[in-house]
Amino acid sequence: MDSRTVGILGGGQLGRMLVEAANRLNIKTVILDAPNSPAKQISNSTEHIDGSFTNANDIKELAKKCDVLTIEIEHIDVETLKELRVINPNLSIYPSPETIEIIQDKYIQKEHLIKNGLKVATSQAIETPNVDSLIKIGEEYGYPFVLKSRKFAYDGRGNFIVKDKDSIPTALEALKDRTLYAEKWAPFVKEFAVMIVRTIDGRVFSYPVVETIHQNSICHLCYAPARVPDSVQLKAKLMAENTIKSFPSCGIFGVEMFYLENGEILINEVAPRPHNSGHFSIDACITSQFEAHIRAILDLPIPKNFGSLTTTNTNAIMLNVLGAPDKNGELKTCERALATPGASVYLYGKESRPNRKVGHINIISSSMTECERKLQYIMGNTNEQFKVSVADRILQHSKKTPLVGIIMGSDSDLPVMSAACRILEQFEVPFEVTIVSAHRTPHRMSAYAIEASQRGIKTIIAGAGGAAHLPGMVAAMTALPVIGVPVKGSTLDGVDSLHSIVQMPRGVPVATVAINNSTNAALLAIRMLGIYDSTYLTKMQEFLLRQEEEVLEKAARLEDIGYDSYLNSK
Amino acid sequence: MDSRTVGILGGGQLGRMLVEAANRLNIKTVILDAPNSPAKQISNSTEHIDGSFTNANDIKELAKKCDVLTIEIEHIDVETLKELRVINPNLSIYPSPETIEIIQDKYIQKEHLIKNGLKVATSQAIETPNVDSLIKIGEEYGYPFVLKSRKFAYDGRGNFIVKDKDSIPTALEALKDRTLYAEKWAPFVKEFAVMIVRTIDGRVFSYPVVETIHQNSICHLCYAPARVPDSVQLKAKLMAENTIKSFPSCGIFGVEMFYLENGEILINEVAPRPHNSGHFSIDACITSQFEAHIRAILDLPIPKNFGSLTTTNTNAIMLNVLGAPDKNGELKTCERALATPGASVYLYGKESRPNRKVGHINIISSSMTECERKLQYIMGNTNEQFKVSVADRILQHSKKTPLVGIIMGSDSDLPVMSAACRILEQFEVPFEVTIVSAHRTPHRMSAYAIEASQRGIKTIIAGAGGAAHLPGMVAAMTALPVIGVPVKGSTLDGVDSLHSIVQMPRGVPVATVAINNSTNAALLAIRMLGIYDSTYLTKMQEFLLRQEEEVLEKAARLEDIGYDSYLNSK
Repeated sequence: MDSRTVGILGGGQLGRMLVEAANRLNIKTVILDAPNSPAKQISNSTEHIDGSFTNANDIKELAKKCDVLTIEIEHIDVETLKELRVINPNLSIYPSPETIEIIQDKYIQKEHLIKNGLKVATSQAIETPNVDSLIKIGEEYGYPFVLKSRKFAYDGRGNFIVKDKDSIPTALEALKDRTLYAEKWAPFVKEFAVMIVRTIDGRVFSYPVVETIHQNSICHLCYAPARVPDSVQLKAKLMAENTIKSFPSCGIFGVEMFYLENGEILINEVAPRPHNSGHFSIDACITSQFEAHIRAILDLPIPKNFGSLTTTNTNAIMLNVLGAPDKNGELKTCERALATPGASVYLYGKESRPNRKVGHINIISSSMTECERKLQYIMGNTNEQFKVSVADRILQHSKKTPLVGIIMGSDSDLPVMSAACRILEQFEVPFEVTIVSAHRTPHRMSAYAIEASQRGIKTIIAGAGGAAHLPGMVAAMTALPVIGVPVKGSTLDGVDSLHSIVQMPRGVPVATVAINNSTNAALLAIRMLGIYDSTYLTKMQEFLLRQEEEVLEKAARLEDIGYDSYLNSK
Repeated sequence: MDSRTVGILGGGQLGRMLVEAANRLNIKTVILDAPNSPAKQISNSTEHIDGSFTNANDIKELAKKCDVLTIEIEHIDVETLKELRVINPNLSIYPSPETIEIIQDKYIQKEHLIKNGLKVATSQAIETPNVDSLIKIGEEYGYPFVLKSRKFAYDGRGNFIVKDKDSIPTALEALKDRTLYAEKWAPFVKEFAVMIVRTIDGRVFSYPVVETIHQNSICHLCYAPARVPDSVQLKAKLMAENTIKSFPSCGIFGVEMFYLENGEILINEVAPRPHNSGHFSIDACITSQFEAHIRAILDLPIPKNFGSLTTTNTNAIMLNVLGAPDKNGELKTCERALATPGASVYLYGKESRPNRKVGHINIISSSMTECERKLQYIMGNTNEQFKVSVADRILQHSKKTPLVGIIMGSDSDLPVMSAACRILEQFEVPFEVTIVSAHRTPHRMSAYAIEASQRGIKTIIAGAGGAAHLPGMVAAMTALPVIGVPVKGSTLDGVDSLHSIVQMPRGVPVATVAINNSTNAALLAIRMLGIYDSTYLTKMQEFLLRQEEEVLEKAARLEDIGYDSYLNSK
C-alpha cells in the first residue's frame, strides 16, 4: 500500500499488533528491541535491530533503515529523536518528540492539559519529598491522596496511595529515587478510556468510549462501550477528542479518564500509542487501533466513521490474559475461550511468567449480558458449557436462564398455554412457566413484571380469559415486549378476552395473537429473539420451510388420490 | 496455544493468511515454497524450506520440521504424503492424502460425489480425445458443453467451453497433452460457494452460503450471504455439509455449486483448503476460515456457531484485487477502499503483475445495498464520496439503514399510520415507510417480505383495513416479527380488520395492536429492539416513567382544583 518502511521503537505486544496491521497492507516494518521480541517474530523484514529503545545509537541505527519512525512505548530517548530530525530531515517521526516529551513527564502532561482547559485532578509537584512536605499535602488534599512518579510509571508501578499520615514513610520508601508529584484523590466510580486517532492534517476520530476495570493496578477487563448512558459517553468522547487536539502530533492515542460520583469526568492520563483498552477494536471495529495508527502515520486514507462498532448492537469485553503461577497455566483460560462462540484469542509469543501480559481475549456479542455470561465461563467461574454435545443439549437447555416467561391468570388456562411451552421446547428456547393472576395476586404480578427484565427475561407471554387484564397490566410495568393470548371462556367465544387484551390505550402496547392460539405467541416470541440472535432466525426460517413442505406433501397426496379417498383416509 | 509446529505445502496468499491466524494463537508455522513467498514473509519461524510442493525431497524435508502437515494448494505430490505416513507415523497429515487424491482428479472427484448421492452435472471421461469423439459428445449433450482437464485446473485454466461443432479443433488444441473429460452445460443463474470446516472427530460446520461472480474465469466478487431466499441458502448449506461429510478428512473445505434456472443445485467442485470465496470471513465472521483450519487440524476447540456472520444482519462483499496493466495501478482501488467506511484492504506481498491476484477488499455493512454502493465507489464507478464532512452528517443520519419498515395497504391508511412514524422519530429509530398492497400489488408485497431481513429491517409494522391481509401475508413470507395495525374502515368499526389480522392460523403469528392504534405498534417495535439494544430499552423505560409523571401531574391538578374547574379548564 506504501513503499515506505516503518521503524518501531519497542517490539512488545503493541508492536506485534502494529506489525500484523502493517503486514495486511503489505507495509514493511523494522523493529528495535531485544532479539526475537514479539513484534519481530511476525514482521515481514529481516533487518531488525537488536538493542534498546533507550539507547541513542540503537535508535540512530533503526532510523537509517526507515522512512517513518514511530513508537509502541513512550519511555524512549526523546533527545535522540530531536537530534535525528536534524540529521535526517526526510525522516518522519510520529508522534512528535515534543508530544512524547510532554507525555513522558506526567506532571508536565497535567500542566499541559490544564493550560488547554481540560479538567484533571488537583495535583502539585513535590520539590523536596519528605515526611513534612507530605503531611502538608495530606492536610491540604485530605486522605487518601496519591503519590506519583513523574516518569516511567506504568501498570500501577510508580504510584502509591497514601491512606493516612502513618503510611507516608512507606510511600516515600516505595518511590525513593524518583521525581514525584502528589494528586488529590479522585472519587471515581468508573474508569473510562477512549482511543483517538489524529491524522497528519490534525483531524481527530474517536473509537467508542470504554470502561476499564483494573486488578492489582493492571488492566483486567475492558467493556466496550462503557456501561453508562449515551450522554455520558458523548461527554467523555468530546473530552478525549479535545485532549488529543491539544497535541500537535499524529497517530493513535489512548486517553484515560475518571468518571466521578457527581457525574464529572476528569482526564487521568494520555498514552501516545496503541493502548490496552483499545484491543477490543480488533474484533469489534472494522479498523483496529493498530491499523488506524499505521494509516495515520503514513497519511493513508481514514474514513469518517472508521472506529464505530461493527453494528449499533455490537458489545465487546476484552479480558487480559496474564501468566498463571504455573507456567502456561493461563492457556486453560484460552482454551475455554476457543470453545466459546464469539470469543477470539490473541497470544503475543511471550514466555509465560506470573502476572505478565501474554495475551488477550475479545468477546463479542449483540448483548453485554451475553458477553458477561461468556466471560464468566472463560474465566472458569461457571460450569456452564458452550461446547455442548448433542446429547447434553436437552439437559443444558432446561437449566439455562429463561429468555421467555409464560404466565397465565389461572391453571385452567394451562391446556391452552401448554402449546406455547411445546413450541419453545421444540426451538430449544429456555423459558419458565407460572401462574400470575392480575385480579387475585396483584402484588405478585407487579413483582413479576418489574423483575423480569433484570432476571434476563426478554419477552413475556401472558394468557388470560374474560376481562383479561394480565397482559396489559404486565405491559404497563415493564419495558419488555408482552405477548397476549386471549383464552376462550365459557361465554362470548373469547371475543371478551380478545378485546380486553388488544384494545390497550395509546402508550402501552400488547402484541395480541389469535384466540387460544398460544402456539403463535411462542412463534412470535422466537421471531423477536431472532431479531439479533441468528440461531433463532435460522430455526424460524427452517420452521417456515418445513411448514411449507408439509402442506405441499398434503397437496400432492390430495392430487394423487382424489378428494374422496383423501377424506376417507384421514 | 499449542506447541506443535504446522508445516504448510505452498506459501501463496492462502498460506499467508493461514500464517496470520497461526501467529495470533502463537502457533509456529514452516512453509515449503519459493524463497520469500507471501506466507514466509510474515511467519514466526526462520526454518522454511525453499523448494517446490511437487518435489518429493522438499516435502520430506519440510515434514522433518513439523508435527502437523497441511496444504494451501491441492496440486501437490500425494504419493510422497502417503510415503511420509509410513516413514513417520507420528506426523499428522490434514487433509488426508486420499482426500487430496480424489479431489485432484476432477473426474474421480465427480464419481465420488455421485457415489455419495450428490447431484452433479452429467459428465464423461474422454479416453481418446479427437474430433470424432467430441462430435459424438456434442450430439449427446448439445452445445455448449464444457471440455475440462481432469487435473491441475484452476481459475479457468484447463477449461474450454465448446460452443459448437466448429470450435472442437480449437478446444482440442487448447487442452492438448491433458487428460480430459466432458461436462454437460449446467444452465446456472448463479454460482454459490460454502466453506465447511470438518473436525478431526468428523463434525462439520458451515459458513454462510455465498454467491461468487467470475470475470474471465477468475473470482471477481463474492456476496455473503448469497442474494437468494433463505430456503435456497439452507438447501445449499445442507448439500455442502453432506459433500464434506463424504470425505474422511479434516480442515477447511470450499464447496462450489451451480444454482440452476429450475431451482436445482448441483455440486461443481470441492477445494480441500481455504478458498477465495471464504475471504469475507476475516471481517464478517468471528473466526475466519483460516483460523478455523488451524483450529481443526490441531484439534483445538471450535464452538458451535463459530462461522455465523457477526450478526444476523451483517452483509459482506469481497472484491479481489488483481494486478493492473500498469504496475501497482491496482493500489488506486485499494486507496479508495481505505477511504470507505466498513472496507478493509488485504495485500499479499506479491509483485504486481497484470491479472495476478495480489490482494482482496472486504466490505461490511448491515445492508447489502449499502455494500454495493460502497463497492461501486471502490471500483471507481461513482464519484460519490464517503469521506463526509461534519456538516453532511445530519443528512447522513436520516439516511441510516432503517430498522423498522412501516407498510400500509393504501395511502388512505397514512393518517392512522403516521402516528407510528412520529413515535419512531421521537425515539430516534431509523425507519422507512411505504405503500404495499396485498391485493393490488401482491408481487411487490412478496419481494418486500422476502428482502426485508437482508436489507437490515428488524421488524415490520403493517397497517390494513377491511379484509386486512397485508400483515398476515407478510408474516407468512418472513421470519421477522410482524406487527399488525387494524385500520378502521367505513363499516363494522374496524372489527373486520381486527379479526382479519389477529385470527391468524397456527404457525404464522401477527402481533396485533388495538384498532387504529399505530402508536402502540411503534412502541411495541421499540420494545422488541430493546430486547438486545440497551439504548432502546433505556429510552422505553424513560418513556414509561414520563407517561406516569404526566398522569400524576394531572391527578394532582384534579385533586387541587376539583372536578368542575378541571372540566372547565380543559
